[in-house]
Amino acid sequence: MGVKANVCVFFLLCLAVVLVSGKTGRDPEIGDCKIKCEQLRGAEQDEKLRCKSQCEQQYQEKQRQRRGRARYTKDGRRVPPRLPGNGSQGEQERPQCFQTCMKKQFQEHQGRRSGDTSRRGRGSQTGRQQQQSNNPYVFQEEHFTAKLETEQGNIRFLQKFTDRSDLFQGIEKYRVAFLEAEPQTFVMPNHFDADALIYVQNGEGTITLINEDSRQTYNIKRGDILHVPAGLSVYLINRNNNERLVLAKILHTVSVPGELQTFFSVGVENPESSIFNAFSTEVLEAAFNTDRDSLERLFNPQQQQGGVFKKVTEEQIKQLTGKEEGQAWPFGKKKGQKKGPYNIYKNKPSVANENGVLYEVDSDDFNELRDINVAFSLYNITQGSMAGPFYHAKATVALVVTKGEGMFEMACPHLSELQQSYRTSTGFNPSYQKVSANLRRGTVVVVPAGHPIVIEAANQDLEIVSFGLKTDKNEWFPLAGRDNVMSQWEDEAIELAFGVPVKEVQQVIQKQNQRLFFKGPVRRGRAFV
Amino acid sequence: MGVKANVCVFFLLCLAVVLVSGKTGRDPEIGDCKIKCEQLRGAEQDEKLRCKSQCEQQYQEKQRQRRGRARYTKDGRRVPPRLPGNGSQGEQERPQCFQTCMKKQFQEHQGRRSGDTSRRGRGSQTGRQQQQSNNPYVFQEEHFTAKLETEQGNIRFLQKFTDRSDLFQGIEKYRVAFLEAEPQTFVMPNHFDADALIYVQNGEGTITLINEDSRQTYNIKRGDILHVPAGLSVYLINRNNNERLVLAKILHTVSVPGELQTFFSVGVENPESSIFNAFSTEVLEAAFNTDRDSLERLFNPQQQQGGVFKKVTEEQIKQLTGKEEGQAWPFGKKKGQKKGPYNIYKNKPSVANENGVLYEVDSDDFNELRDINVAFSLYNITQGSMAGPFYHAKATVALVVTKGEGMFEMACPHLSELQQSYRTSTGFNPSYQKVSANLRRGTVVVVPAGHPIVIEAANQDLEIVSFGLKTDKNEWFPLAGRDNVMSQWEDEAIELAFGVPVKEVQQVIQKQNQRLFFKGPVRRGRAFV
Amino acid sequence: MGVKANVCVFFLLCLAVVLVSGKTGRDPEIGDCKIKCEQLRGAEQDEKLRCKSQCEQQYQEKQRQRRGRARYTKDGRRVPPRLPGNGSQGEQERPQCFQTCMKKQFQEHQGRRSGDTSRRGRGSQTGRQQQQSNNPYVFQEEHFTAKLETEQGNIRFLQKFTDRSDLFQGIEKYRVAFLEAEPQTFVMPNHFDADALIYVQNGEGTITLINEDSRQTYNIKRGDILHVPAGLSVYLINRNNNERLVLAKILHTVSVPGELQTFFSVGVENPESSIFNAFSTEVLEAAFNTDRDSLERLFNPQQQQGGVFKKVTEEQIKQLTGKEEGQAWPFGKKKGQKKGPYNIYKNKPSVANENGVLYEVDSDDFNELRDINVAFSLYNITQGSMAGPFYHAKATVALVVTKGEGMFEMACPHLSELQQSYRTSTGFNPSYQKVSANLRRGTVVVVPAGHPIVIEAANQDLEIVSFGLKTDKNEWFPLAGRDNVMSQWEDEAIELAFGVPVKEVQQVIQKQNQRLFFKGPVRRGRAFV
Repeated sequence: MGVKANVCVFFLLCLAVVLVSGKTGRDPEIGDCKIKCEQLRGAEQDEKLRCKSQCEQQYQEKQRQRRGRARYTKDGRRVPPRLPGNGSQGEQERPQCFQTCMKKQFQEHQGRRSGDTSRRGRGSQTGRQQQQSNNPYVFQEEHFTAKLETEQGNIRFLQKFTDRSDLFQGIEKYRVAFLEAEPQTFVMPNHFDADALIYVQNGEGTITLINEDSRQTYNIKRGDILHVPAGLSVYLINRNNNERLVLAKILHTVSVPGELQTFFSVGVENPESSIFNAFSTEVLEAAFNTDRDSLERLFNPQQQQGGVFKKVTEEQIKQLTGKEEGQAWPFGKKKGQKKGPYNIYKNKPSVANENGVLYEVDSDDFNELRDINVAFSLYNITQGSMAGPFYHAKATVALVVTKGEGMFEMACPHLSELQQSYRTSTGFNPSYQKVSANLRRGTVVVVPAGHPIVIEAANQDLEIVSFGLKTDKNEWFPLAGRDNVMSQWEDEAIELAFGVPVKEVQQVIQKQNQRLFFKGPVRRGRAFV
Repeated sequence: MGVKANVCVFFLLCLAVVLVSGKTGRDPEIGDCKIKCEQLRGAEQDEKLRCKSQCEQQYQEKQRQRRGRARYTKDGRRVPPRLPGNGSQGEQERPQCFQTCMKKQFQEHQGRRSGDTSRRGRGSQTGRQQQQSNNPYVFQEEHFTAKLETEQGNIRFLQKFTDRSDLFQGIEKYRVAFLEAEPQTFVMPNHFDADALIYVQNGEGTITLINEDSRQTYNIKRGDILHVPAGLSVYLINRNNNERLVLAKILHTVSVPGELQTFFSVGVENPESSIFNAFSTEVLEAAFNTDRDSLERLFNPQQQQGGVFKKVTEEQIKQLTGKEEGQAWPFGKKKGQKKGPYNIYKNKPSVANENGVLYEVDSDDFNELRDINVAFSLYNITQGSMAGPFYHAKATVALVVTKGEGMFEMACPHLSELQQSYRTSTGFNPSYQKVSANLRRGTVVVVPAGHPIVIEAANQDLEIVSFGLKTDKNEWFPLAGRDNVMSQWEDEAIELAFGVPVKEVQQVIQKQNQRLFFKGPVRRGRAFV
Repeated sequence: MGVKANVCVFFLLCLAVVLVSGKTGRDPEIGDCKIKCEQLRGAEQDEKLRCKSQCEQQYQEKQRQRRGRARYTKDGRRVPPRLPGNGSQGEQERPQCFQTCMKKQFQEHQGRRSGDTSRRGRGSQTGRQQQQSNNPYVFQEEHFTAKLETEQGNIRFLQKFTDRSDLFQGIEKYRVAFLEAEPQTFVMPNHFDADALIYVQNGEGTITLINEDSRQTYNIKRGDILHVPAGLSVYLINRNNNERLVLAKILHTVSVPGELQTFFSVGVENPESSIFNAFSTEVLEAAFNTDRDSLERLFNPQQQQGGVFKKVTEEQIKQLTGKEEGQAWPFGKKKGQKKGPYNIYKNKPSVANENGVLYEVDSDDFNELRDINVAFSLYNITQGSMAGPFYHAKATVALVVTKGEGMFEMACPHLSELQQSYRTSTGFNPSYQKVSANLRRGTVVVVPAGHPIVIEAANQDLEIVSFGLKTDKNEWFPLAGRDNVMSQWEDEAIELAFGVPVKEVQQVIQKQNQRLFFKGPVRRGRAFV
């Protein structure tokens, strides 16, 4: 049976696979698909096997699409993508926030009924556990859809924001990712179709960017932020003997909104994982002006290359990191040179008291933030203290917990039982529901513009990195404590708004004289976590 | 029955609700839903009641979503959202413009058949009545989806443009809103997740913006435009004893495109309508460094607060508006201070003759227009006169009728019976259909870039405010009268284009020597309106 | 039967049409629709005819919509729009790239099985034929959805990118178009709702832009690029006696993303194709201050005007093109004046050797490129030579073949059989598939940011114009030859990445000392084309 005949059979197989999926109108069970393969007439055994493998491949492709793209129910509403770890399908078809609120209301109702005088306290603590897994603003371990884990390190990408909720349409171009490299590890060269802002969360490394006609090598350390423009080839080394190197990244995709592609020149796992493998041999021979054998030794070696992360020796580290910071190669060429990392601790804290410290970096400090349209800040909240309530003026903010544990509350404008729906469709005259979450290292919380939040540290200091998306300025307003919004209202406005004498109001809103960071609440129920 | 058992029953109830909606594959009728609640086994009476209330809540939520989000038919086309006042569902599923054109063509055809010599005149007038309610470019009272109406004032938001038609995808981030406050009325402090451009259509007020660390108070009057950046807390007073204060606003949403949320610090109708109500009591106690009782007196008082609009006394007005315009508080702080309102009558009119006056303001005059990417202009068309035909170069324009009555015509490139579809899918070699509408105070018309329009004043002067979206420059081209596009063609081009001697063409296109505003048409049929 | 009764019948007809489509839940076959028309009771013969013509009209409208808008399958996945020349519907419902890759893998597998030692070469050549028609990156003649063809010239618009694939969401606002005018031809005045960048691919012409209050006339020739802002009225003449004038255009739509409308003042085929025809007669009489008869002579003449392209005499050409280049009229008025064409050969080539020449123009050279956010370059690849492998840093690039024939290969990150799906959903640890295409005059290829490509000239010189979308800078990285990305890695990084001694690697990656353009491959199979 020649090549030509095989092609024909192959098309029959393909057609079969297509028919299977077409007929049922929904994803074919792998089982069904494989049975059809078995029953195909005129197919040899290896064709059948190939057919079955196509079943699997197609199924995985569809799975991937399900996660990555919109789905719609029969009556046309958008289905939130199914997430690993989420149970009932039925629940998924209803808006998550609505569900959250229903539960919360019920629990508070229960609290009231059971005669608990501390209803908000009690209710919210029970609620906290429930809400966390369902509310669309909080992302935990299970919301990272792509993971690469090896002994030497790991890379994790948070799911696309719009796969979680339509509420995130405004930030669909952004992605969050983490990279962790063990001590003495080299990360293979690659380039991305996204601009990246990297925050060095822990450890010490050396990063090399290959620009159009120069090379920059920077030593990076905890507290540095670094902008890597899309398309720049990058490699990285954890040069420390003991500490992990941990990077938190915001990626601003430049091609398909929210979709990322990584390109490796050298195959990281197998020959197919090199971009050169996609070209015809003759083309590569001509491009490199060399013969196939030489190319195969480099790009198609017999043994596996060993993956994205590679253990390196002290000697290799010394050679790779011995250069001065920011040194460009070849010397003298300046075109396109980047200014390298900016250490956030350079800036005087914007706020600092015994309860917490806030560092802020915007494009006035570090003008590359303008290119990626992100503002950066770091909250360090003392054990047992809290930040807020406050809100961000314009930015939708991605908070990333980098150290410690704590609690998060947000006021979410929402439908209430008592209001008529026509009034609330633009959020006018709304009521606000609490969205809350436990925070731990790796939790990501998205805070939409204008939404008031409180962040609370538990039994240890809580460090949170904040990426302000779609703006290169940090702008926020406190709702309690010094300079709070209400304290700036005129006396008459205060009296009109509250309907009680201004003195009484001021006694309350001016009593707290700290700014942003306060002593935390005394929990009446059992301590959280 | 303890809390725990109740939770279980509650989840059963939830599941039931979910199943109901899941099974039918479409929105559950409230009735059906409630029946299922009644039939739930093991549920006590109050559980059943709660279940039923969830039915209602869910139904309202869905209603809200239907208005606010895309729906799709079984074969996957997008369904234009159902609007209040729109009848047949079948009609809704077909593109509105197509429908409009079908009707119009038929009516003109009828005109021709019945031997009417004045066919365009007659036909269009019959058509006018029909088209107005169906064409997607014209918005009337019934297209305002959120309304708050009290004795002291009202706020109305126009539906999302993309809920009306996919043609408005390019301007989906913008919303139009109106606010009217009775004499001597205070509007409660709030902030928005949108940048706003406010035009003072009528009356006199005083507006206060709370910035990061300063407060600005401005007196505003008819003809002022003011930019309020997203997140700034604002309160407002109508300080006049007799006149209504009327504001027309363009809102540029910064979070979810086209979706707006309003945030009130102090509850405007009930305690739930304060953002503080969403936080745990302990958290608020800690933030304000005070006890629960004090907080409850402020944020959770026994009596209702009385809503967004509050009647005020002359004395209160005096105190709230006695400050100088643009005064910042605390004195000396300048960071983030805004420059306040710009009066459009400051500018010399761009065009002025006995038939009309045009004022234009762009970012060169008022540089805050750059921040919201809007250009502003105001047409004052004399009774019996008209503006145009003319077109906007780049802006899609939202025209808002602020005074008087009149008529609008627009040339809409469209499919014609005679053309083959492949030719027209990009609008090449098209024919143009008339879109027309009656104008009255409050009508909003969206004019896409490049589309020629005519605006005609009826029996009184017509005032129209024009917000040019997605550009901060006013750029338009007249198609008749002085400086019209054709009058600038070279003689040979004119002759080639028209196929008649250039002299004959120039006699026609140079006869009208006014610019933009002309004496209006003599209507041969009955007068409109 | 009076007008009123007719209206009723008409609505019945409409309803019938609606019901037909509504009931079946899918597009009505024209046949069915017409039968219903025939069966309508109470309808006269002409009503029936009109009903049938509505069937046709509606069908065409729907066809247009199918091409222009998203469709969804029953289970909610987006259906790639059906293209002319595409066969099986079933195939269409699966992602094209997946299909491409499946076929390719199979063919390579076959190559391997049949003992072909030159597998990449062989496999890819068979694959090439197949892939070309299916891969979403390559556009040929059949992907132009709007065409106007007359004896004197033609205009063709490439389909919307997003109609081809969701992968092109990032560039949905851009369109590609071609215009060809025979010698001595005038192109009728018109304006667009898009900013245009025009490249003069061949011939000599004279173009006139009508600005707000001035007129600019420019002589244009091969190698010129010209920016025409949205809304400017434009006419054009091919002033050469022998050569065709050929323009390639990038259009950046300013209204509905990716949708274009053209506006003609003077009817190009029939009276309906003038924008003035859409306005009421009385309105036009008033606007032009003249009577109906004069208007009808101009805008509604008895004889056809003869279309968009008009044959002109030498005398007319002399008069239309006798003015100096860039001359503005009326003299002295400068507001809004544009700077006219920029000849790309003005710039020193960025790269030039015996194998090819690259000209690049960005906003630093020609600052109007900033307005349309496009970077321009031109590749001239010598017969038998090639460009690349290289990739673009940030731009998604539209390559337009303007001369010659050749071959294209691209590395496309994609799902492979061996990888687990969770790993690949963000493209991490991917494998790369080859996308290839034959190139000939008129082929358009879209290259996403970051994707490595090779362009190869066949038996004649190959000229390719490259529009870099969404950036006004040209930034690209070579992957072979002088300055290739790998050659800039440090020795230790090279050794770690390749896992072989650095010397061996450098022997390969430094052997080719040309930059970008190389001697082409020796094809072992039969020559392509």
